[in-house]
Amino acid sequence: MPVLTPQHVDFPRWYQDLLTKAKLAENGPARGTMVIRPNGYAIWERMQGEVDGRIKAAGAANAYFPLLIPMEFFAREAEHVEGFSPELAVVTHGGGKELTAPLAIRPTSEAVVGEYMSKWIDSYRDLPLRLNQWANVVRWELRPRIFLRTTEFLWQEGHTAHVDEAEARGYARGILRDVYEDFLRKVAAVPVIVGRKTAKERFAGAANTMTCEGVMRDGKALQMATSHELGQRFSRAFDITYTGADGSSQLCWTTSWGASTRMMGGLIMCHGDDFGLVVPPALAPVQAVVVVVKESDGAVTRAAGALADELTTRGVRVRLDDDVAAGFGWRATEWDLQGVPIRIELGPRDIERRAAVVYRRDTRDKTTVGLDDVPAEVQRLLGTVQGDMLRAATARRDARIDDCATLDEVREAAQSGVARVPWDEVGVAGEQELAAAGLTVRCLQHSDGSLPDGDDDAGALAYVAKAY
Amino acid sequence: MPVLTPQHVDFPRWYQDLLTKAKLAENGPARGTMVIRPNGYAIWERMQGEVDGRIKAAGAANAYFPLLIPMEFFAREAEHVEGFSPELAVVTHGGGKELTAPLAIRPTSEAVVGEYMSKWIDSYRDLPLRLNQWANVVRWELRPRIFLRTTEFLWQEGHTAHVDEAEARGYARGILRDVYEDFLRKVAAVPVIVGRKTAKERFAGAANTMTCEGVMRDGKALQMATSHELGQRFSRAFDITYTGADGSSQLCWTTSWGASTRMMGGLIMCHGDDFGLVVPPALAPVQAVVVVVKESDGAVTRAAGALADELTTRGVRVRLDDDVAAGFGWRATEWDLQGVPIRIELGPRDIERRAAVVYRRDTRDKTTVGLDDVPAEVQRLLGTVQGDMLRAATARRDARIDDCATLDEVREAAQSGVARVPWDEVGVAGEQELAAAGLTVRCLQHSDGSLPDGDDDAGALAYVAKAY
Repeated sequence: MPVLTPQHVDFPRWYQDLLTKAKLAENGPARGTMVIRPNGYAIWERMQGEVDGRIKAAGAANAYFPLLIPMEFFAREAEHVEGFSPELAVVTHGGGKELTAPLAIRPTSEAVVGEYMSKWIDSYRDLPLRLNQWANVVRWELRPRIFLRTTEFLWQEGHTAHVDEAEARGYARGILRDVYEDFLRKVAAVPVIVGRKTAKERFAGAANTMTCEGVMRDGKALQMATSHELGQRFSRAFDITYTGADGSSQLCWTTSWGASTRMMGGLIMCHGDDFGLVVPPALAPVQAVVVVVKESDGAVTRAAGALADELTTRGVRVRLDDDVAAGFGWRATEWDLQGVPIRIELGPRDIERRAAVVYRRDTRDKTTVGLDDVPAEVQRLLGTVQGDMLRAATARRDARIDDCATLDEVREAAQSGVARVPWDEVGVAGEQELAAAGLTVRCLQHSDGSLPDGDDDAGALAYVAKAY
Repeated sequence: MPVLTPQHVDFPRWYQDLLTKAKLAENGPARGTMVIRPNGYAIWERMQGEVDGRIKAAGAANAYFPLLIPMEFFAREAEHVEGFSPELAVVTHGGGKELTAPLAIRPTSEAVVGEYMSKWIDSYRDLPLRLNQWANVVRWELRPRIFLRTTEFLWQEGHTAHVDEAEARGYARGILRDVYEDFLRKVAAVPVIVGRKTAKERFAGAANTMTCEGVMRDGKALQMATSHELGQRFSRAFDITYTGADGSSQLCWTTSWGASTRMMGGLIMCHGDDFGLVVPPALAPVQAVVVVVKESDGAVTRAAGALADELTTRGVRVRLDDDVAAGFGWRATEWDLQGVPIRIELGPRDIERRAAVVYRRDTRDKTTVGLDDVPAEVQRLLGTVQGDMLRAATARRDARIDDCATLDEVREAAQSGVARVPWDEVGVAGEQELAAAGLTVRCLQHSDGSLPDGDDDAGALAYVAKAY
């Protein structure tokens, strides 16, 4: 009896089983909300730390804007209000009274940030203004799924203002590449497809939306982070102007960009297998667990403890599992479920022969290593697993990508993976047709991996898939 | 013309001036909300890191519970609903429709956490269950003041469940002492008075509330963190039970504890002076700024850059200010406003004599230090300033405390400071009388600094003050 529904039997059930069995998250009491349990939150905290460091390196500073936003703020940018109105949660009562003007819970903060940028920016010397916030947002969700689409989710949202279009564009791309793609590849080991969204898929109010698209183990795509050029639309709506060096008044060029707890869903579905979560070492709250298989006279626990101490000294995030009252099989299953990258198993016989079994979660391979060599081997293996996970995920992704020449081929290929097709073959009309079949153009990309500058750049390739 | 309204002229205006001029925070668009600007948020981030580390050391794990809570959850614990009902913000519409059951925005999460603890706890082996979350909460505020009382604020709230009262009590006290008091004293350099709240001042639903009370520079008290024993009230309301080793079903004993962005207000008002913020080195986003006073041939900027690099190498958080186009006086005023602990001033004459002026913000003392000795001197001084700030704040606090014997004396003393008086002299009736005069019993404490176990322990001293 497997712990989880196998992926090939029912992928969505596998996902739900894993969330529950690994105690990652569960539904909240209000529809569409979620409770992130400590096992899940510990991974999210590491994601935050890694992304936050990259955001700071990109020159943005953290700030905090209010949860509650006057409804009229949204109305100022026409596409923005149209996009978000159907998803708003509205506060009508506060402090026991009906409010004279209802307040929206932020679905995103462009509007309120715009209001303050307008106050804070005076001259070109105040630019670029680069802000980021870590916050919760609420978007009413009709078909919620934990981490992927929830009414409330956690994210960071960056908001910047620049002197001109070139600088804004460069910054939005820098965030896409140096923050999101870099984090997703190097830390989360998720080989994303980086591209430009079609006009249909753009963020409400953006002039250009760029995306990192992950390919999950069931062949579906997942948007894992986006970066938007907002042009001068929000500047116009919120009067975000600056005085140039020549004394003239100019509208700023703004950007926004975000990544959310949805990345947790992507991590799970990109790497997880029928035994549970598989977490890359760089993100794993516990990188290695030292397991006392059985105990006789205390010698195993002593050796395991010494090993754990030595690994801690070397900077490995390690846990000691000496709960021999619980059977070894049960505990091994648990550590598999949690996706701990490396497991070191020690029993009485191992102590006798001065060796340990070292198990890596990604390949489930076991090797026997001399006891004294274990710490160095674990350190080496952490790097190896990190690299191998990215390589394996890249191979899985690439195996899912089919080059297509016609819409019919696309429809066929995108049933079980990602269809790559010249955007000229699809176009706005083809995109509508595909939508009717439940397929979306995830993004446009040039064949050399670069991003198209416009909606109809010659030679752009479209990636089409079912998506979460 | 001073930059800020002097404290002795109008303390609340000084506070408001400082928030604005140092760009720490400002009002949000919806009444009672605030925008925390990067200068303020950078300090909050460091507070979070320090508190979070201590919470983890106390064995609690971070998790996340939903913002939106069904209204009926609050009704389950009678005192809790009575305490929080007048402050709730209520969502009545979501996704364009009126909700069948309105949702409250969390004012605190005991109710929703209780619901999940009940699900997650099965046997005594699941205990203690120790959770913490960093989150925003909303409590409708009629007289908002930034950082001190805002409709939305940021905080951490810990929630734990234990097998018995002794363990719960010990844990709640450990959090009070080892997390909050330790952080406030050692990092924030705020010498708090640690005590037990009277029944009147308890958290809605708590059996015992313990507090860290700061004394501000105007003599008023500020509650900076609290830790609550909830007894079995929430366990009963939410059915948080466990099966004991003997097979019997038992109610858990729970605790909760929190500290918020209000600590920012406490930091500002405990240390700030007429020149601006004074931030202890352990919390300062920038610990030392190297200022190029004037430049002639580039030699000063080179030396300042080398100094900043050397300080960075030594682990000091340093900033280089080479903006000589702006006058030195103006920049010095700015760095004073920001409360940067140490300023190193370098001009052409300093380069000639191979020396620098080292300025400490807390005492505003300047000394001349040989250029080669500056890095070591800065490192030494960071420790000295940290210790001196706590000593100075302790002396200011103690000078504000008056020992009183009667209620009349208390009323007099508490006009400008903190009155310490035997609780027997006050009692429940006296507390009501004081309340009419705008004074509150901040906490009860034994003369040896220990905490009373009950509401009427013999020999307890009451600290009475005006409070924020």
